[in-house]
Formats: sequence, C-alpha cells, structure tokens
Amino acid sequence: MPQEIEKHYKEILKQYIQDQNEKDLYSGQKFSRQFIEKEISPEEVIGIHKASLKELFPEASEKLWHSFDFLIEMMIHYGLALQEHQSLIRKQE
Amino acid sequence: MPQEIEKHYKEILKQYIQDQNEKDLYSGQKFSRQFIEKEISPEEVIGIHKASLKELFPEASEKLWHSFDFLIEMMIHYGLALQEHQSLIRKQE
Repeated sequence: MPQEIEKHYKEILKQYIQDQNEKDLYSGQKFSRQFIEKEISPEEVIGIHKASLKELFPEASEKLWHSFDFLIEMMIHYGLALQEHQSLIRKQE
Repeated sequence: MPQEIEKHYKEILKQYIQDQNEKDLYSGQKFSRQFIEKEISPEEVIGIHKASLKELFPEASEKLWHSFDFLIEMMIHYGLALQEHQSLIRKQE
C-alpha cells in the first residue's frame, strides 16, 4: 500500500476516534472507495488499521495485536473473491 | 450472522490469541471460507470480531471500539463489490 494512503488513513482514523464525528466517517467512506479502485485488498486495510492502532494505543496488550493477525487471515478469502471479481469485470469490458 | 457462527468464531479467536498456534489460524482460514459461502459480508466479520474482543478485553479503551466502527465503514464498499461479484457469478451459471 502506498505510504501516502497509509498516512492519510491514520489521520482520518485518529480524527474519528477522538470525536466520532460523522464528517470523518464520511471522509473515511469516500477514502475507502479509492482502496478498491487501487486494488488494495481488504486484508491490507486490516494491516494498516492494525499499524495505525499500534501508534495510537502503544500500551495495548500483545494479544490484541495477535487478534488482528487472525482477522487478516479471515479477510484473505474476501480478497481472493474480489480479485476474481475484478478479473471478471475486465473480461466483460 | 447466525449465532452458532458467532460463537464458533469467538472460540477459535480466543484459542488463537492465547497461544498463536498455526493450527488455530488454519481452522480460522477454513472457517472464513464458510463466511463467503453463506454470503456474510466483510463488515459483518469485523462486527463479530469487535464483539469477540469486547468480551476478551473488557477493560479496553472506548476509543478502540470506535476504531472498529470506523473499520466497519471501510469494509462496506468491499461488501458491495462482493455482492456484485456474487450476482455476476449467478448470471453466468
């Protein structure tokens, strides 16, 4: 994932968890459309979410980070299904 | 999401974060294939992950749970793309 996307994600997330503003949630939604356009997989999004939280909650339990590794594995099949979708779309174009 | 799936998810996750055993990760991967077959969206998986963590880390900061609400929003477009994929597949059958 390009570094500027990672940085931008962290900024919006940080903003959102500070004040749970609907505006930030909406920015996030718009931003997430770019993820799909840039063919960033859902497991990569979980990875960047984990990395952002590690900065925001440096004291959190190691077990919490392990739970994210588990979640990343859960998302791999979704990522594969999506790749298949993108290749079907390309064939139809 | 059916309750037995939710319960099963919690059990495997709990097991995995206790000892980070590859076997549990593999069980999780197999389990996640069922999610797609049952057309459970990626945002629903994040929701069940959040609910499981709330039980496992009752003392965690409220901000952590807000971060999951943000992540759920991030996954919505992936869920929509996947629905589109499933409907394309059905048309081809």
